[in-house]
Amino acid sequence: MKPCQVNEKLKVGYQGVPGSYSYEAMTGIFDSSIETVNVNEFEDVFRLVKEGKVKYGVVPIENSSTGDIHEVIDLFNKYDTYIVGEKSLKVDHCLIGIEGAVHGDIKEVYSIPQAFQQCSEYFKQHPSWKLVAYYNTAKSVELIKHQNLKHIAAVASRKAAELYGVQVIEPNINFNCSNYTRFVVIGSAIEVCEDSDKISMVLTLSHTVGSLYQVIKAITENGLNMMKIESRPIIGKPWEYYFYIDFGGNFKDDAVKKTINSLEEHCIQLKMLGNYKSDL
Amino acid sequence: MKPCQVNEKLKVGYQGVPGSYSYEAMTGIFDSSIETVNVNEFEDVFRLVKEGKVKYGVVPIENSSTGDIHEVIDLFNKYDTYIVGEKSLKVDHCLIGIEGAVHGDIKEVYSIPQAFQQCSEYFKQHPSWKLVAYYNTAKSVELIKHQNLKHIAAVASRKAAELYGVQVIEPNINFNCSNYTRFVVIGSAIEVCEDSDKISMVLTLSHTVGSLYQVIKAITENGLNMMKIESRPIIGKPWEYYFYIDFGGNFKDDAVKKTINSLEEHCIQLKMLGNYKSDL
Repeated sequence: MKPCQVNEKLKVGYQGVPGSYSYEAMTGIFDSSIETVNVNEFEDVFRLVKEGKVKYGVVPIENSSTGDIHEVIDLFNKYDTYIVGEKSLKVDHCLIGIEGAVHGDIKEVYSIPQAFQQCSEYFKQHPSWKLVAYYNTAKSVELIKHQNLKHIAAVASRKAAELYGVQVIEPNINFNCSNYTRFVVIGSAIEVCEDSDKISMVLTLSHTVGSLYQVIKAITENGLNMMKIESRPIIGKPWEYYFYIDFGGNFKDDAVKKTINSLEEHCIQLKMLGNYKSDL
Repeated sequence: MKPCQVNEKLKVGYQGVPGSYSYEAMTGIFDSSIETVNVNEFEDVFRLVKEGKVKYGVVPIENSSTGDIHEVIDLFNKYDTYIVGEKSLKVDHCLIGIEGAVHGDIKEVYSIPQAFQQCSEYFKQHPSWKLVAYYNTAKSVELIKHQNLKHIAAVASRKAAELYGVQVIEPNINFNCSNYTRFVVIGSAIEVCEDSDKISMVLTLSHTVGSLYQVIKAITENGLNMMKIESRPIIGKPWEYYFYIDFGGNFKDDAVKKTINSLEEHCIQLKMLGNYKSDL
């Protein structure tokens, strides 16, 4: 059951703490009147939405340097949730330390594994540093502020450093200067607007040869543009995959209706994840 | 230039140290007469092969629980190397500590990020443990053996624990009991045998609508089975992708020749990575 939003603030959930990239994406999507709920894990955001404790959640789904955030894509299969919007955010990682810390002091660095990957070339130059996986970028900054030790650093945004009153030791340490993360807004139901122009879905195919071909054929021959396709392992069935696909269109378009009808013939499971306005 | 192998031992490179999953895959592929060369990074294995310092290298490319090892797929674009074989290996991760260490002692765990991901459910039950990203699973065991502290553990195989004379504190901590990793043998040239039945390629498509459809159409309409498709971000071009595709066949088959001719029409870049015997 959805919470009653009348005379109540709109509640939005995100993973991490203020100053995280999720927080920044969220504040770029919603105005300042929302009430925010923050949690430790991506799965907690899905749970909040599913249980109606927030109306929406904001989670990262893909990065332009390192690819999908697989855990998030898999969570759409576990929780009955949908994509209602998206936001592309430029991500510039900084090496952050406490006041007075210099490069030579650093021995241990906290951040999320994706941030370490996006800065992999930089960290290869510092092989003695201990890279510690932590919940979230801004939460890592909060931690180093709290620990107050010169040899402990974090990887996060400049905004996070400013918010927690610590300093940027080295800016822009990601190897790709066009480093963007795509965030999606998740809700408990699909919401289609007039300007919705992107459709996301997940599907499992029958084992017959050419079943993926039939899916892509249906999309293409109806004149629709496939923007992205991603295969994900099916747990417990080694080397079998389910697919995540984005394509252009609106559910009210005849071409989209024809496509979805055709897809249903070729898929064992087909779940429409949403129809929303593209931000890419 | 390839090294002369006459009267010389076959040299094979891998990432990590003895007891690593790469080492186990390598010894399952080659007989005991080989000379092994171990390095710290996946990229070093590609470099060894490219520079002719080893004849072959063994690297993980995909896991049945967590998906592709993206870094390895991207390295095929950076180094002029090819796939000449593959090996699927069952991977059961253990929590490993020094002699006398018990579960309650643990405060810090070393392993590769992929192993932490494959054991994510387990580690969520121990949120206070510090998870430290390290080069390799067996190298993490070597490290804890060397540090000799009861509060420091590693995630690696039982074989690694036995090899370094330390103990398994908890076996099978991966969330998926069908956890397999696919390793590939890389070489400086394509090697096609009579029984080669799998083809791998990477390609970049033109920006016209339906170009991926034309690629999959060519494969399917020539009666070939597409086993896997993966999109990877193109660095510097946010939300554009190149594709990694596996399909069944042998280069000498007419259907394969026709397919490749057709693919060349629809791709901006097309690189055949190899034609080898499937082990999946």
